[in-house]
Amino acid sequence: MQDSYYMNEAIKLALKGSIYTHPNPKVGCIIVKNNQIIGKGYHRYFGGDHAEVNAVKYCLKKFKKDKGLKLLKGSTAYITLEPCSISSKTPPCTETIIKYGIKKIFCASLDPNKSINGRGVKILRKNNVDVKVGLLKNEAKSINEEFFFRHTKGRPFVRMKIAQTLDGKIALNSGESKWITSKDSREDVQYLRAESDAILVGSGTVKKDNPRLNVRNIKINKDKFRQPKKIILGNVNTKSNLSILKGDSEKIIFSNNPSSTKDSKIKYRKLSNSKTIESLLKELPEFEINSLLVEGGSEVFSSFINKNMVDELIIYISPKILGKNAISSLNIKSPKILKNATNFKIIETVPMKEDIKIIMRRI
Amino acid sequence: MQDSYYMNEAIKLALKGSIYTHPNPKVGCIIVKNNQIIGKGYHRYFGGDHAEVNAVKYCLKKFKKDKGLKLLKGSTAYITLEPCSISSKTPPCTETIIKYGIKKIFCASLDPNKSINGRGVKILRKNNVDVKVGLLKNEAKSINEEFFFRHTKGRPFVRMKIAQTLDGKIALNSGESKWITSKDSREDVQYLRAESDAILVGSGTVKKDNPRLNVRNIKINKDKFRQPKKIILGNVNTKSNLSILKGDSEKIIFSNNPSSTKDSKIKYRKLSNSKTIESLLKELPEFEINSLLVEGGSEVFSSFINKNMVDELIIYISPKILGKNAISSLNIKSPKILKNATNFKIIETVPMKEDIKIIMRRI
Repeated sequence: MQDSYYMNEAIKLALKGSIYTHPNPKVGCIIVKNNQIIGKGYHRYFGGDHAEVNAVKYCLKKFKKDKGLKLLKGSTAYITLEPCSISSKTPPCTETIIKYGIKKIFCASLDPNKSINGRGVKILRKNNVDVKVGLLKNEAKSINEEFFFRHTKGRPFVRMKIAQTLDGKIALNSGESKWITSKDSREDVQYLRAESDAILVGSGTVKKDNPRLNVRNIKINKDKFRQPKKIILGNVNTKSNLSILKGDSEKIIFSNNPSSTKDSKIKYRKLSNSKTIESLLKELPEFEINSLLVEGGSEVFSSFINKNMVDELIIYISPKILGKNAISSLNIKSPKILKNATNFKIIETVPMKEDIKIIMRRI
Repeated sequence: MQDSYYMNEAIKLALKGSIYTHPNPKVGCIIVKNNQIIGKGYHRYFGGDHAEVNAVKYCLKKFKKDKGLKLLKGSTAYITLEPCSISSKTPPCTETIIKYGIKKIFCASLDPNKSINGRGVKILRKNNVDVKVGLLKNEAKSINEEFFFRHTKGRPFVRMKIAQTLDGKIALNSGESKWITSKDSREDVQYLRAESDAILVGSGTVKKDNPRLNVRNIKINKDKFRQPKKIILGNVNTKSNLSILKGDSEKIIFSNNPSSTKDSKIKYRKLSNSKTIESLLKELPEFEINSLLVEGGSEVFSSFINKNMVDELIIYISPKILGKNAISSLNIKSPKILKNATNFKIIETVPMKEDIKIIMRRI
């Protein structure tokens, strides 16, 4: 019971990493000695110290160096994810644990990353650290669902967001779509973006709406926040003055006709008619994309639905009616019988003042 | 304060009439003497005794006749609606009040029915009953919104119910529409029907789906419940074996080509291309219809929306997608600019297990 309590505290700490850690996972760490918490830390932002290092630093600061070092020796650590065993932006956490004499580790789950998976645990055990794996495993995994998804499925978790009217329309025939949904809904979308590693949009939408596709108008710590990457499906002229090409986040253009560019932030990927959405998605993990937010328009929405590649569907419905000549959010082929219709499961409905938000998952 | 308390009790009593009183209003009555409730009653079902009569009966039964009669003399009654002054199925309530010597009356609001409006109060005052009008007026009116609507606007309150998919479809092109929404949503619709005086459907839907359009599968007291009237918009063959023509509720067919029928339950009304939805609705109060539930299909939905004749719009959304060849719930002309789009106000969203229900009102 005590152990669960400490792990739960570690999970709560991990959550503080919020929108700043990805594509790294959110991780929390609690260090305990004689039934007292002597250290706590979490991964605060991408590129920053890991949870274990922060927990050790916390201890050395709080108890002053000598007493802190004494306390750490023979202590127990509760960590929400397997400690890393490779040097990346920071030294491996296994080293820190061994160096400071932490004797026992509870980790909620192994790291799904194939280059780590189990290696951290092995190194610790070799160095006489007692490691227990699995305490509150599901709870700890759930806070990093998209990170686990990418590492186990080899493609990002796909979240698709549609803002539409009661009759399923996203714009007038003239292209006018500002604004279908209300201010609150649009602000809510900013949070969806902030939680995503990348945002995908079709080249048609880029040309028609000229969206910026960045996170704005919400409170963020700009020093720690990294704007999501932008992915364009289809050809766009990179010499043009398109808003989406601005800002220093990476842009990935899937094109069958790449225009040359000197902008190091723009990367091209081959798009061909035979390339499926699924194979396209499989190219994204190498860009460190755990979660992809698909933002539109109609053609992109339809192809993702057609290929059954939407893991989470979020629809904002505005109580308007745009009529038969307006543009539908979806244009997929109809099934022959109702039983075969594409079907989602509603997870949550959220009233949004003027609109309503429906969150659905694949069945 | 005490007065408000008693009136509030009367309102709570009135609500017990639930689905059984319409097209009569729900009415409650509390009789008080020496700060004690000595009588309470409500209008239980259409054709039954009125609230005031039931409250007097309650008193005479509870206290035995002689003591009851004594108590009633000089008592005060709290009634949610002006007492009726005309004989209908039961004697006028004003008579009862005068006969038993009730000295003071609080009534929450006047009866909006033009043949009563103020007459009840006048008769009582002439007979030396002290009458105060307006206590908790809005609260009392809200429980009979549709009754007040009909008597003030001269047409029924129109509630339109659509069961559709995420992409705004109500059936496959083949006509298959069983079942778009889940069992829970369908049961919920039974309650909407039970609360309505009449259900309207287009002749196209009658021919295609052959609906029964009655209240079923929910717990009702069959002795007191009257099935809603059925209104068909368009021509149907009354010699056919259509389910909608069965049952003993009244059927009103708006037709430009009435087929002859000996069925006394079937009434015809003239329909012409020039007849607007509004003028059609104005013919319904004479059938004692306070609230009309519009059930489909696409053509009927669209014409009510087009004419802005929907007071409450209820949409059940199933998280399915039926695709571009399926039948849309609405087929109205698109506006030129977004600002001119038909717009509703969301009043409530109700999760329905598998589906979601959105209740909207006219803006």
